[in-house]
Amino acid sequence: MTQADPKLLANIRIVLARTSHPGNIGAAARAMKTMGLSQLYLVQPTLFPNSQADAMAASAGDLLAQAQVCITLEEALAGTVLAFGVSARRRDIVTEVLTPPEAAVRLLTEAQAAPVALVFGNETSGLSNEELSLCQGLVSIAANPDYSSLNLAAAVQVLSYEIRQTWLQHPSWPPPEIDAARLDDVERFYAHLETALTELEFLNQGSPGKLMLKLRWLFSRTRLAQEEVNILRGILTAAQTAKRLAGPLRDRKPE
Amino acid sequence: MTQADPKLLANIRIVLARTSHPGNIGAAARAMKTMGLSQLYLVQPTLFPNSQADAMAASAGDLLAQAQVCITLEEALAGTVLAFGVSARRRDIVTEVLTPPEAAVRLLTEAQAAPVALVFGNETSGLSNEELSLCQGLVSIAANPDYSSLNLAAAVQVLSYEIRQTWLQHPSWPPPEIDAARLDDVERFYAHLETALTELEFLNQGSPGKLMLKLRWLFSRTRLAQEEVNILRGILTAAQTAKRLAGPLRDRKPE
Repeated sequence: MTQADPKLLANIRIVLARTSHPGNIGAAARAMKTMGLSQLYLVQPTLFPNSQADAMAASAGDLLAQAQVCITLEEALAGTVLAFGVSARRRDIVTEVLTPPEAAVRLLTEAQAAPVALVFGNETSGLSNEELSLCQGLVSIAANPDYSSLNLAAAVQVLSYEIRQTWLQHPSWPPPEIDAARLDDVERFYAHLETALTELEFLNQGSPGKLMLKLRWLFSRTRLAQEEVNILRGILTAAQTAKRLAGPLRDRKPE
Repeated sequence: MTQADPKLLANIRIVLARTSHPGNIGAAARAMKTMGLSQLYLVQPTLFPNSQADAMAASAGDLLAQAQVCITLEEALAGTVLAFGVSARRRDIVTEVLTPPEAAVRLLTEAQAAPVALVFGNETSGLSNEELSLCQGLVSIAANPDYSSLNLAAAVQVLSYEIRQTWLQHPSWPPPEIDAARLDDVERFYAHLETALTELEFLNQGSPGKLMLKLRWLFSRTRLAQEEVNILRGILTAAQTAKRLAGPLRDRKPE
């Protein structure tokens, strides 16, 4: 039998966003290492490094030592082409919801070409809407409807376990479907979009938030290809050029 | 779709043998409850009840309050018809080794008729040979060969998760294959076997341990039916009667 390729696991990031309890960071590192994952990213951890994290990591202290501590989730996702948020099922947002085995297949397929990520939110509040808007889908663990609150490290264990089992079962993978854009390029597109829409007087400069969030959700569902990002930014630049030549639009009608 | 039957989950016991850290007991209870399991059995826990266990259980304190604390593993397995030990793969004993999904199917199938159990050993030393001899097979989680040491509660989470996923996927199950003997009846058979073999001067009364362990492994692999236990005990009784009539065998030859 062909061996499963360790490079795939090395391309999978576990991102813990705003973790409150350092013990959970250590326990998550241990959970990852038992399943062969190694890339730990921490976004604004409350306490890190920390002796409780070290204690709970047991022999996975090397993962803590190499962990990337980031200020923003965008920073933690830089270079990735696919990110899934892990969360209980949410009725308030429209996005793809995958089971852990489905997510494992998608992540491993993309991991052949570039880094991918699983994002875990704060222990109490979960993932914020802003964090979710950086993800292309949600992974939901089918839990007891009367008590679905897995401990953070337990959720990391379940997802890492599913990734390893899926990885072991498929020594080879079909190529990724599209030449997916890296998330940082997609972020630059959103920044460009916001600037352009503001210039076009389409966005209220005071509170562009809600509309931008809706546009993010729209594009994150489609998973943009690199080429598509280039095209969209080309359109934005063209629109900006036209607007600059046109001058202020307010109270004017086209001739 | 037919609903999966909650009675099956209620027939699955999680048995924690000689757990050192009470926090692990609480975290295991939480892991169980998130997956709809409720039957927690504790064999000689070092500290229980305990405030650390309560803290780690979060909203699964009801499982701790209802947990059965036992002196022996036999007591925890009384009434069960199937028990699997959870352990890293062991080369020193010959027994069936199952993946978590395989174990989940077997346990849920038998749970239609009677209680079944998953047995987790001590955090450091794992399951003893004596504990393993009460199990009909081993469940092994395919982990990183360089670091396979899952935290106890993390292992409970993975197995509970697999049981729930398997349960959700199969709203109905084929009937159990055999009218399996309850483990306490099997234990009475082993006691009877040891007495009979001693009477027959086959076992050295001083150290019957090793041979009895081998006989246990032989029978536990086959999974005795209730009827077979009755037949075997009938044979033992017949042999005992013959021996009592015959008197001492030492230095005598059949005529």
